[in-house]
Amino acid sequence: MLTVNAYAATSATEPLAPTTIERRDLGPHDVLIAIAYAGICHSDIHTVRSEWGPASYPLAPGHEIVGEVAGIGTAVTGHAVGDRVGVGCMVNSCRECEQCRKGQEQYCLKGMIGTYDAVDLDGTVTQGGYSTHIVVNEDFVLRVPEAIPYEAAAPLLCAGITTYSPLRHWGAGPGKQVAVVGLGGLGHMAVKLAHAMGAEVTVLSQSLKKQDDGLRMGADHYYATSDPATFKTLAGTFDLIVNTVSAKVNVNAYLRLLAVDGALVNVGAPAEPLSVHAFGLIMGRRTFAGSNIGGIKETQEMLDFCAEHGIASEVEVIAADKINDAYERVLASDVRYRFVIDAATFNV
Amino acid sequence: MLTVNAYAATSATEPLAPTTIERRDLGPHDVLIAIAYAGICHSDIHTVRSEWGPASYPLAPGHEIVGEVAGIGTAVTGHAVGDRVGVGCMVNSCRECEQCRKGQEQYCLKGMIGTYDAVDLDGTVTQGGYSTHIVVNEDFVLRVPEAIPYEAAAPLLCAGITTYSPLRHWGAGPGKQVAVVGLGGLGHMAVKLAHAMGAEVTVLSQSLKKQDDGLRMGADHYYATSDPATFKTLAGTFDLIVNTVSAKVNVNAYLRLLAVDGALVNVGAPAEPLSVHAFGLIMGRRTFAGSNIGGIKETQEMLDFCAEHGIASEVEVIAADKINDAYERVLASDVRYRFVIDAATFNV
Repeated sequence: MLTVNAYAATSATEPLAPTTIERRDLGPHDVLIAIAYAGICHSDIHTVRSEWGPASYPLAPGHEIVGEVAGIGTAVTGHAVGDRVGVGCMVNSCRECEQCRKGQEQYCLKGMIGTYDAVDLDGTVTQGGYSTHIVVNEDFVLRVPEAIPYEAAAPLLCAGITTYSPLRHWGAGPGKQVAVVGLGGLGHMAVKLAHAMGAEVTVLSQSLKKQDDGLRMGADHYYATSDPATFKTLAGTFDLIVNTVSAKVNVNAYLRLLAVDGALVNVGAPAEPLSVHAFGLIMGRRTFAGSNIGGIKETQEMLDFCAEHGIASEVEVIAADKINDAYERVLASDVRYRFVIDAATFNV
Repeated sequence: MLTVNAYAATSATEPLAPTTIERRDLGPHDVLIAIAYAGICHSDIHTVRSEWGPASYPLAPGHEIVGEVAGIGTAVTGHAVGDRVGVGCMVNSCRECEQCRKGQEQYCLKGMIGTYDAVDLDGTVTQGGYSTHIVVNEDFVLRVPEAIPYEAAAPLLCAGITTYSPLRHWGAGPGKQVAVVGLGGLGHMAVKLAHAMGAEVTVLSQSLKKQDDGLRMGADHYYATSDPATFKTLAGTFDLIVNTVSAKVNVNAYLRLLAVDGALVNVGAPAEPLSVHAFGLIMGRRTFAGSNIGGIKETQEMLDFCAEHGIASEVEVIAADKINDAYERVLASDVRYRFVIDAATFNV
């Protein structure tokens, strides 16, 4: 067992605090990673606060992890000590079901094993990336291309793949009108990715505050959803709307912005149910759908795509002792565009 | 102008009564049809009662029309006097937009012209098939194969195409698990069509009352939705669920019955909004969608498919003076499986 420094929550109501956690000894197929940076995802906050069901405490969250391979098990062939690697939202799955065989481990029929607060196949509870080191099965370790700086790569492991996968699945590309709702951690990645895929990209944001950023990132158009005229102007426009906002939105208003056969895809999940008028779906054969991260193969494809197109996340690097402040700023949408924790500061 | 016998509503609250309506003189591209039978669709009831917005009165509904060509305009080439023909939910569209050019006139970007209670391109309000004759532009007149008896063909023009189109669009066929919610006018067609397409078909009906019928029509399985065990047994099963029930249902319960990448498709539209948990869409990349009838080319394909596979609607033929009684029975789900009005009785 390896005892490593970490930041963890001890209850749903306490702030995260420095502590130590255990990492398992390297099995033949395991990779030991010296973490360089870990991104802060809204899911981390939901989970440590038990907003998505009761969490196991103490809990170190974090599933946007990048770092260097510091050791490998005897049977590992795909990774070597010193390699730049990453770990996203999953660290295991059954490997046997139809979905795993298709490379869609995120939809594993037995349930994928999350990077934190999940019971792994060996019965232990997983601990995430707010830590100096992590041990992960080689099949769930991604290669991070040299072209992407570590800190800017971390958010790709969740925010990147969560938006890349639906953009690919619903065919974002030349000739397609793609809208991105919300220009936050996920939204800013969606804009960059959809633009690089060749789609015409529109940002639908609460206000025009981040318009300059959005256009710089590759958006062709930028509209404020607080302006009712937006919903008239853009009616029937989009082939795909990726909704990155996890607060409750007016789904019917967004459905009306879809072209015939268009899809509104939620990647955020508000806790409350959404109210949907079936007429809005029927008239125009419109789709309301959801998408959950992406498979391992697709995540690697996304990382390589980002390297090829010079895409990375825009981040604000913080020290570990600022995690709780950062949480408050995430909840206030006060971040451009992702907090990333410098893992060196877990050792202070 | 041709004055013809019909049954029409004079207000949202009055029963339908015998009257006469006007049909336009034959234009060069028009077809005069001597109606043989007209089906009764739930939409007829919604519309004459102004439940989908204020209707224009007097209003003769009916958009499941079959009969014989009794006259053609000078430029008509596709239909000849004596031909067996049908008319469905549309009698016109712009013909110019992207959707019309794709043969998806039902999604015409300028709005398709409904068979009744719609303003046609010439400014007149359309009147439906509860009548002895109708005049329709040749492009919206379907050929009814000899193999299908007139009365059993009428409901294909709405109930048939409304279920055929989503089954085709979402890939019902061999190796696919298809569920049909509700065994009524639309549902019984969905079962026959999905079975003929080669899918494994499950009926999800309120009770087991119609189980023998459902299995005879081609269903492989039949479950009662009033039994909570159904939703446990069938969790994660279906690639496609066609929901034909226009009353409000528990969408989230049906979403849980979908396999990964499965689609729940509404063809009925409850007036009230439906409550949807985004988590249910995200976990499994599931889709909640809608579908509205089908295009003219696809409707012809459906009629030919039905003839080839020996499929027709199961009907109860009534005289015109029983229309109001039939409406009450439709609302009580007391029909196996579609009322069809014998148009000869409009002349009594």
